[in-house]
Amino acid sequence: MCELLGMSANVPTDIRFSFAALARRGGETGPHADGWGISFYENHGCRSFHDPEPSARSELAKLLRNYPIKSRIVIAHVRKANRGRVSLENTHPFSRELWGRRWTFAHNGQLKGVKKLPLGGFAPIGSTDSEHAFCWMMGRLQARFRTLPKPALLDRAVADLAADLHGRGVFNMLLSDSRTLYAHCGKRLCYLTRRAPFGTATLIDEDWRVDFATETTDRDVVSVVATQALTRDESWTDLDRGAVLTLRDGAIRLLKPGNPASAAVPLEPPAC
Amino acid sequence: MCELLGMSANVPTDIRFSFAALARRGGETGPHADGWGISFYENHGCRSFHDPEPSARSELAKLLRNYPIKSRIVIAHVRKANRGRVSLENTHPFSRELWGRRWTFAHNGQLKGVKKLPLGGFAPIGSTDSEHAFCWMMGRLQARFRTLPKPALLDRAVADLAADLHGRGVFNMLLSDSRTLYAHCGKRLCYLTRRAPFGTATLIDEDWRVDFATETTDRDVVSVVATQALTRDESWTDLDRGAVLTLRDGAIRLLKPGNPASAAVPLEPPAC
Repeated sequence: MCELLGMSANVPTDIRFSFAALARRGGETGPHADGWGISFYENHGCRSFHDPEPSARSELAKLLRNYPIKSRIVIAHVRKANRGRVSLENTHPFSRELWGRRWTFAHNGQLKGVKKLPLGGFAPIGSTDSEHAFCWMMGRLQARFRTLPKPALLDRAVADLAADLHGRGVFNMLLSDSRTLYAHCGKRLCYLTRRAPFGTATLIDEDWRVDFATETTDRDVVSVVATQALTRDESWTDLDRGAVLTLRDGAIRLLKPGNPASAAVPLEPPAC
Repeated sequence: MCELLGMSANVPTDIRFSFAALARRGGETGPHADGWGISFYENHGCRSFHDPEPSARSELAKLLRNYPIKSRIVIAHVRKANRGRVSLENTHPFSRELWGRRWTFAHNGQLKGVKKLPLGGFAPIGSTDSEHAFCWMMGRLQARFRTLPKPALLDRAVADLAADLHGRGVFNMLLSDSRTLYAHCGKRLCYLTRRAPFGTATLIDEDWRVDFATETTDRDVVSVVATQALTRDESWTDLDRGAVLTLRDGAIRLLKPGNPASAAVPLEPPAC
């Protein structure tokens, strides 16, 4: 199973603390040794770093731990390959331009028969089911709206496409268009929001403790979505299967509730 | 005026030596202080690094100097902003997916009225003339060919689109689809090919000397295209205005000759 990490904040925020935990799960404290990637939005621009090397041993991941990129939307992924060989073109997050926006997508799970879904104006570069699903979503959005629709319309369309893919297997997904971070829980995803009064947090995977009160202002709101909790002394909320969140400026909205009986599913390899 | 650097090789090759010279021209030995970017292909995958900071002072550029990424196709750019503010989304190289290939584009020069050119399925994310020109080219290629055409057809189509833009101003361009590196000389571009027997080379912009014989095999072929010569002890060939090169596996082909009376134009700010 791959692992996902997403962040939405109302001020540019350093993700290194949370990314450190995810990176170690890529071949050290977790089995996700088949590459990793992270995308940082800065307004409409986006930087992405990809490496088919395990993140726990990646030189690039080490560099990023020492390089503070502040962003309001982040999507990161560590991969345990299942479909599609280990290569740069198969490394999440994937990205495409639609309506003059940079869209970024990361997925974990398995989708049955997804490559039979017909594509529109977007085609996969690599061979993963995940990138095919992303291209299908982008093609459907492009066919439905000629230009960028209003947020409520776009939210609903994204939720409908995610629900379709949810019916085909396991579809844990993070997606962003530079304005909104969408999260869909297929099997396991949890979240938290940090806001004043800020406390301290300690990573589960290593002995790194941060006092957020010294790094933030009272107006900062930072939400994090992840496959499993990254810190041991904060309260993470499990999402139900099928639930869709929108995150804008750190504010979380439950766009679509899932199945209440399905939260907190144990993590089981293999996937994605 | 921005500066361009492209590389094509028949084996994965480390670009750090040439990139070091280009990076210093970004705010140190040259005036190109408005951001920089570099894209490295690995088969069909592509890594891009972008920074709106001057490359001579960029932490990311320093990291790249110590991080050996080997690639067969590279496109790099340092920017002196003219149209479009200094921001991540306005930082070259730009990229789009077409026919399941990752296309990458960098430009220097100015194009008159280019934003009036009608767009197809690709839209700019930033506000530069360059990205608009790239989106126009991609839209025209998509409209002309439903799937990836044979190389000869694609080469001709790219040359025709470049010639159109050449008629609208200054269009020095590097473009790649992961197979071919295309170079169009609008005003100034030069190139060289390194092959056995390899010699030594010294950067113009700093005291860095490389003996390529110790870093290569007899079968390696590496071609470099740049706005101006990067080394002081190698023989660079100036391209004529309007000339188009294709570079595949390090082999250069003059796809379209330019105007023989126009080579070696002095570098004049401002542009791009």
